Amino acid sequence: MKAEIKILKKIESKAFVLVSGLPGIAYIGKLSVDYLVQQLKAELVGEVYSKYFPPYVLIRKNGVVELLRNELHLHRDKLAGDIVFFSGNSQAFSPEGQYEIADTLLDWAVDNGVKKVFSLAAYVTDRTFDAPRVYGTATSSELLEGLKERGVVPLAEGLISGENGLIMGLAKKRSVEAVCLLGETRGYQTPSGHYFIDAKASKAVLNMLALILNLKVDMGPLEKQAKGMDEIIARMADVERRLKEEMSASVKKPSYVT
Amino acid sequence: MKAEIKILKKIESKAFVLVSGLPGIAYIGKLSVDYLVQQLKAELVGEVYSKYFPPYVLIRKNGVVELLRNELHLHRDKLAGDIVFFSGNSQAFSPEGQYEIADTLLDWAVDNGVKKVFSLAAYVTDRTFDAPRVYGTATSSELLEGLKERGVVPLAEGLISGENGLIMGLAKKRSVEAVCLLGETRGYQTPSGHYFIDAKASKAVLNMLALILNLKVDMGPLEKQAKGMDEIIARMADVERRLKEEMSASVKKPSYVT
Amino acid sequence: MKAEIKILKKIESKAFVLVSGLPGIAYIGKLSVDYLVQQLKAELVGEVYSKYFPPYVLIRKNGVVELLRNELHLHRDKLAGDIVFFSGNSQAFSPEGQYEIADTLLDWAVDNGVKKVFSLAAYVTDRTFDAPRVYGTATSSELLEGLKERGVVPLAEGLISGENGLIMGLAKKRSVEAVCLLGETRGYQTPSGHYFIDAKASKAVLNMLALILNLKVDMGPLEKQAKGMDEIIARMADVERRLKEEMSASVKKPSYVT
Amino acid sequence: MKAEIKILKKIESKAFVLVSGLPGIAYIGKLSVDYLVQQLKAELVGEVYSKYFPPYVLIRKNGVVELLRNELHLHRDKLAGDIVFFSGNSQAFSPEGQYEIADTLLDWAVDNGVKKVFSLAAYVTDRTFDAPRVYGTATSSELLEGLKERGVVPLAEGLISGENGLIMGLAKKRSVEAVCLLGETRGYQTPSGHYFIDAKASKAVLNMLALILNLKVDMGPLEKQAKGMDEIIARMADVERRLKEEMSASVKKPSYVT
Repeated sequence: MKAEIKILKKIESKAFVLVSGLPGIAYIGKLSVDYLVQQLKAELVGEVYSKYFPPYVLIRKNGVVELLRNELHLHRDKLAGDIVFFSGNSQAFSPEGQYEIADTLLDWAVDNGVKKVFSLAAYVTDRTFDAPRVYGTATSSELLEGLKERGVVPLAEGLISGENGLIMGLAKKRSVEAVCLLGETRGYQTPSGHYFIDAKASKAVLNMLALILNLKVDMGPLEKQAKGMDEIIARMADVERRLKEEMSASVKKPSYVT
Repeated sequence: MKAEIKILKKIESKAFVLVSGLPGIAYIGKLSVDYLVQQLKAELVGEVYSKYFPPYVLIRKNGVVELLRNELHLHRDKLAGDIVFFSGNSQAFSPEGQYEIADTLLDWAVDNGVKKVFSLAAYVTDRTFDAPRVYGTATSSELLEGLKERGVVPLAEGLISGENGLIMGLAKKRSVEAVCLLGETRGYQTPSGHYFIDAKASKAVLNMLALILNLKVDMGPLEKQAKGMDEIIARMADVERRLKEEMSASVKKPSYVT
Repeated sequence: MKAEIKILKKIESKAFVLVSGLPGIAYIGKLSVDYLVQQLKAELVGEVYSKYFPPYVLIRKNGVVELLRNELHLHRDKLAGDIVFFSGNSQAFSPEGQYEIADTLLDWAVDNGVKKVFSLAAYVTDRTFDAPRVYGTATSSELLEGLKERGVVPLAEGLISGENGLIMGLAKKRSVEAVCLLGETRGYQTPSGHYFIDAKASKAVLNMLALILNLKVDMGPLEKQAKGMDEIIARMADVERRLKEEMSASVKKPSYVT
Repeated sequence: MKAEIKILKKIESKAFVLVSGLPGIAYIGKLSVDYLVQQLKAELVGEVYSKYFPPYVLIRKNGVVELLRNELHLHRDKLAGDIVFFSGNSQAFSPEGQYEIADTLLDWAVDNGVKKVFSLAAYVTDRTFDAPRVYGTATSSELLEGLKERGVVPLAEGLISGENGLIMGLAKKRSVEAVCLLGETRGYQTPSGHYFIDAKASKAVLNMLALILNLKVDMGPLEKQAKGMDEIIARMADVERRLKEEMSASVKKPSYVT
C-alpha cells in the first residue's frame, strides 16, 4: 500500500497549472486552496490515500467518519486555463511519507500535462506591518524575476520544510517549473499549540496568485470562511489534545493480553 | 514480509459481517470480541502476522511461547447470518503498521464477501453515570440514523485513533458500510499505566451489537471473564514494566562486541 | 536492499539444529555461541547483512574495518549431528528490522533442512544464588516437559523481547520446534550502561545445551574468553559513549551546506 | 521511490577511484571534496536523490530552490587516472536511509569500474597539536600498511558512524578496497550546535590524499573557500534554528482541519 491516487475522473487537459496548499503554519495554503475550490466550484477529480497519514479517522459534524486524505479538484477557466487544486486535511506523518506523497502526485501531474506548479505556504516574520507581504521562491531566476515584477519579495538562503517545499524541489527534478508564494504571518498559536488561521495572509497570497494566473475570484466571503474554520480548529484542537493520550497509548505502548 | 493473512479454512460465505475488537482503552473492544468468540464457540479460520507488531513473543501460563498475532474466527448464526470476528493480542506498533494491517484485513474481507464492518471501541467521558452509554459513528448518515433509533448516542467532530478507527475509514474507501460502537468508560489506569478492563462498558456495547445483529448471547459469564483478564493484565503489566528496560536496551541501544 | 543472506558454502544437510545467540543482556547468548564456534572450530558458511543494523562500521584491533553483520557457522558432529550457529555483533536497530532478519534467517533454515531451533538468552532475577539456574520456554508443552526433565526451570506468563524471542515465535509459525534456554543473571551494568558479560550464566546454558544435544565441549577456556571480551566491551563502551554524540549529530540533526 | 542515481553522462571509465566526502563533523569531508571538485573543474556526471533526505528544500542566495541531493563529479587526471567525487548537501535522515544511499552508490560504482574507495572524514581528539594528524582505517591490513608508510596514524577499536563509515563497510562486502582518511580536529561547535568548518584539518587530509593519488592540487584558495562556507553555515544555522520549530510542527504534530 504505497501512496495511491484514486482518479475519479480523467482530467483530459493539454496543459494545466497545479496549485498546492496543504495544512501548515497559519493554515494559509490550505485556506487559500479550499477557498478557491469552493468559490470556483472546482470539481473533485481525484483522491490521494497513504499509510503515511496519521493513524486516525475524523468524525464530521454529522457523525460520519472520514479517512485522512488529500484531494484533487479541477477548474477549467476561460482566461486562466485548466487548474488542478491539491489540498487535504493532513500532510504525511513522516519525512519519507512527505517525499512519497509529493512524488506520487508529481508523477501523476507530469503524466497528465502539468506545465507549472504553485505551492502556497506561510512565512513567519516579526516585522510590524499593516499589510502582509507575499514572499516567493522559484525553480529558476527567470521565474523569480517575473514574480518580483508583480511585487513578490524574493526569499534567499533559507529552507521550506514539508510537502509544500518538497513539491517544488521534486518538480524541479522533473524539469517542471514551480513557484512558492508565502504569505507573511506572525504565526500566532492557540494555548494548546495550534496555529490560528491567518485569513489576511491568505488573502494576500490569493490576490497575488489571481494576478499571476489571470484568475477572477470574489474575495468577499474569505474572512467569513476563515472564521468558520477557526472555530472548527479550536474544537478539533481540544479533541486532539484529549485523544493524543489515547493515541500515544495505543501506538507507542502496545497493549497486549494473554 | 508484509502483513500476512494465513487462512486456516476458506470461509465460503456469500455475505458476512466483520466484527473487530483490538486491544485499546479499557480493553472494551478486545473483551467484547473475545467473549463472543468464546460464548458462540466461533471457529478459528485465519491468523494475521506482521513485522509491525511489537518485537517480542509472549510466554503463556503453560510456558509455551506465542508470536503476537491477530485472529479471525467464524460464527454461522441462524438469525444473524455469518459473522467473522477480528481480534488479537496487539495492535501494530507504528502508524504505517496500523494502516498496513487494517488494509490487508479489508482486502481479504472484500474478496470474501464482507457486507458490513463493526468496530468496537471505548469512549472516555468524565460524566457521572449509572449505566454507560453506547456512542457511535458510521460511514453514512443513513447508517447513523439506524443506530440512533436503537439508542446509540452519535459522536460529532472528533477522531478515532488506531486500527479501530482506520478499519472504518478504509472500509469506507472501499464503499463498504462500517459502524463504530464505543462503550462509555472512565478509562481508569493501574499505577503502572495499564487500563483496567471495563466489563460494564463492554456489556453495554455487546448488548447493542446483539440487538443490531439479532444475535443471542448469554451475558452471564462476562464479568467473570473480565475478572480473569484483569488478573492476567495486572501480572503482565508487572512483567512488561520489568522487561521494558531490556527491550529498550536491545532495540534502542544496539549492542555490539568485537 | 532487504536482509540478505550471503551463502559462502552450501551446507547440504539433511537435518540440522539451529543455535542462535545474539548480543543481549549480559551477552549470554553471544558468548555461548561464539564460544561453541571457536571450541568446535565450526566453519563459516554464511553472512547476514541488513540495512536495519545500526549505521556504523567497526574498526578492529588491527585497524581494519568491518560492516556489522550476523554469521552462520556449521559444525558436523558425530553424536549431535549437524549444527548451524547463528550469531554476530549486533541485533537489528528497529522492531521491523528484528522481524525482517529473524524471518529471513528462518526462510533459509527451513529451505535447508532445519529440524529444531535453540535460542540462547538471559533471564534477570534478583534471587540470591550460588549456581545460576537455566530457565526455559518452548513452542509446545511436550518440548517443555523434556526440558524440565533435564532440570530447566519453566517460565510462565512473561515475554521475550528482541530477535532471541522472535526467532522462536517465527519458527513456531512455520511449524518448526523451538526452545529458548535462558541463563540466570543479575544483569549488572557498567557505569556507562553496558552489561557485564556473565560467563557463569553462559556456562550453565552451555552445559544444558550440551546435555540436550549430546555435544561434548571443553568448558575450560570459557571464563578466560569471557574475560577477554569484557575488556573489549569496556573499551568499546568508552568509544561508543564518545561517538554517540557524533552519531546522533549526523543522523538526527542532518547537516547541510549551500 | 528508492534512492535514485540520475546519470547525466556515462563516465566510460575502465577503472576509477571514488572519493567520498559528505557533511559531518567539522565539514572536513565535504569541504575537501567540494574544494577538489572546484579546483580540478571536475564535471557533474550524476545526481543522487532519496526520500531518506530531510524533508525540505533549500533556497539559494539567488532565491532559487534546490532539492537536497548528492552529486557525482568526474575528473580525468593524467597522473592520478579517473576520479569520481561523491558529495552533497546532506546525509540521509535515518539509519536505513544511510544504508540505502551508500548501497545504491556502490552498486553504481561497481557496475562502472570502481577500483578503490576513499572516504574523507573527521576524527575528534583533545590532544594539543600544532599540525593536525591524519588518521586512517582500511579494508585490509595491507592497505593500512601502505597508509602508515605515508604518515597516516592507524585507528584501532572504534567505530565510524554514518555514510562515511558505511561506504567503506559496504565496499568491503563487495570486495572493493576502501580507505578512510580522518582529519584531526577539535570539533568545535557554534552556540547553536553547528560545527565550525575546520579548514586546517581538511588541508591535512587533502595533502595526504593528493600524495596517495599522485594528484596535484593548489591548496592556496582552500582557507578562503572555508571562510566563505563558514559564513554561509552561520547564516543557515540561524535559519535552521528558526525553521526547526515549523518543521517539527508540520512533521510531528500532523495538522488537520475538518
